[in-house]
Amino acid sequence: MTETVPRPTLEAVAARAGVSRATVSRVVNGSDGVREPLAERVRRAVDELGYVPNQAARSLVTRRHDAVAVIVAEPETRVFADPFFARQLRGISKELTAHDNQLVLLLTEDRDDHARVGRYLAGGHVDGALVFSLHIDDPLPGLIRRAGLPAVFGGRPDFGGGRDGVVYVDSDNRGGARDAVRHLLGLGRSRIAHITGALDQTSAVDRLDGFRDVRVDTDPRLVVEGDFTAASGERAMRELLGRRPDLDAVFAANDLTAAGALRVLREHGRRVPDDVAVVGFDDMQPVAEQTEPPLTTVRQDIEGMGRLMARLLLRELDRPATADEDAGVTPSGVVLPTTLVRRASA
Amino acid sequence: MTETVPRPTLEAVAARAGVSRATVSRVVNGSDGVREPLAERVRRAVDELGYVPNQAARSLVTRRHDAVAVIVAEPETRVFADPFFARQLRGISKELTAHDNQLVLLLTEDRDDHARVGRYLAGGHVDGALVFSLHIDDPLPGLIRRAGLPAVFGGRPDFGGGRDGVVYVDSDNRGGARDAVRHLLGLGRSRIAHITGALDQTSAVDRLDGFRDVRVDTDPRLVVEGDFTAASGERAMRELLGRRPDLDAVFAANDLTAAGALRVLREHGRRVPDDVAVVGFDDMQPVAEQTEPPLTTVRQDIEGMGRLMARLLLRELDRPATADEDAGVTPSGVVLPTTLVRRASA
Repeated sequence: MTETVPRPTLEAVAARAGVSRATVSRVVNGSDGVREPLAERVRRAVDELGYVPNQAARSLVTRRHDAVAVIVAEPETRVFADPFFARQLRGISKELTAHDNQLVLLLTEDRDDHARVGRYLAGGHVDGALVFSLHIDDPLPGLIRRAGLPAVFGGRPDFGGGRDGVVYVDSDNRGGARDAVRHLLGLGRSRIAHITGALDQTSAVDRLDGFRDVRVDTDPRLVVEGDFTAASGERAMRELLGRRPDLDAVFAANDLTAAGALRVLREHGRRVPDDVAVVGFDDMQPVAEQTEPPLTTVRQDIEGMGRLMARLLLRELDRPATADEDAGVTPSGVVLPTTLVRRASA
Repeated sequence: MTETVPRPTLEAVAARAGVSRATVSRVVNGSDGVREPLAERVRRAVDELGYVPNQAARSLVTRRHDAVAVIVAEPETRVFADPFFARQLRGISKELTAHDNQLVLLLTEDRDDHARVGRYLAGGHVDGALVFSLHIDDPLPGLIRRAGLPAVFGGRPDFGGGRDGVVYVDSDNRGGARDAVRHLLGLGRSRIAHITGALDQTSAVDRLDGFRDVRVDTDPRLVVEGDFTAASGERAMRELLGRRPDLDAVFAANDLTAAGALRVLREHGRRVPDDVAVVGFDDMQPVAEQTEPPLTTVRQDIEGMGRLMARLLLRELDRPATADEDAGVTPSGVVLPTTLVRRASA
């Protein structure tokens, strides 16, 4: 992991440049109080050591910006196509606005852009970061940490809750998945398929684990990988019907995936729920109520997750600063409950 | 207009505080090179005069941030619900990324938030601003101007192209609307209705003007106000069918509105295009191809507009700075052509 690389300190830069801490601090914060030959020496030491100013250093010279970065680790085409992000942003936006903090959404085209995002975060433009839709081994947590910014993650990061300073808000993905499959078992279904989410994300892994916890038919052909999009639900459903035409239920990793699966089932003349019962995850509106038939699904409070993420970060920002930047950080994950919502599809 | 209020200068603050320009500059840029009693005096003068640092002042002490703000003057619920914004953002994002500039999307809950956006813009976090979906008398242009930031607008601002320093990119809304109505006239339709967009936006006003330029039946009951949403298309179509049940064509201000109108026409048993021909505006995918029947519409290059906005701003940012911050700014509007795309609805 990138986070374990030792981080060059302000002191190291000062020592290398042969100047005081305060001088380094002024230069990295763009002040004009330092004459050019000296400033140049500091900049060279910064470059040579790969130094990025941390919050403690910045707090010597800057005030709060009353601005919080929101970073979605997805291409902007997905951010806008999936109502999940809009909902979570809505929760965040409401909470930040109520506390007069500016929401700064940093858009990326792809993972190559993360270095640039890291520079912006380290540049003293925001007080903290809210991050969601992390993928396994994502460089973002390391970049945020090196920028010295407090952060709250939406969804459990793959490096878990055991790490100091990691605060996250998640839903009970595994428990919700179990509820979905138990509901299908209760309807007398036994050949239950699962279309997974993107398996480089913990939410998808947890839902798959929950499915595995309680299913009856353990045929591996009943599990097909998807990526949380409707297109992947269509593709996976075709695959499943080819592999196990006798399947009698599908648990899809989210509602968009379920909507895609429903279209393919209809195309193949399978009646839902009579022939095949379908359960989704999210209770995303208007998707879940507008499918044919309306979707039984596991509800998570997406807007509430966003609100809580923002609230935890603002609480962190209101703590008095300490000399040791890592002291006083609460390592904690908050896991919100899910509820099964029954509609016509199962 | 807010822009006509005289803006306090750095010199005025320096004079009031009894300090040099450089001292004021250091304080407003958060440097620690000024001792507290003096800094306090400067801050008091800043408050009393309502001074906001302009770009020229900031450029004394700060470098480029390689970051550009994008501000959509709409509640974030609309930004995410209307694919128009995602498309325009995509064009902007591609162009900024190609030039290693960070896209900083500033979300607002409502118009009350504009003051906070203004503070962020004035805080030295971005090099310029791209603004779209302005409404008439919007305070944003004034805030951006007072923040001393170069800006490019998406769509002609209501204060027009006659103002110095206003750069915008627009589509030929009036010409496109004329083409739509001429096409309907060419199909032998004469009782042509128009569902407008939000009339506090110049794009909607221009499309209405284009409609008026060439229509035949000038009955005012054939014009109903909408707001660019599908819901407004449904509402307006019901209203139109009540007022003029003999109408034989509808020109809708955008594709979402047309999609709403189509649903209501179907509900009322009107065949499209046999009984009523329908034309939209945008050629927004997937909307325009997935309506029943697929939509004849006026195509504008939305992603291209976004790209061009970003390109014009980056060009502006690359100019050498001048002492007079208003010198060297090109007052210019770029108006892109539209094309009629014929599908089954007309």
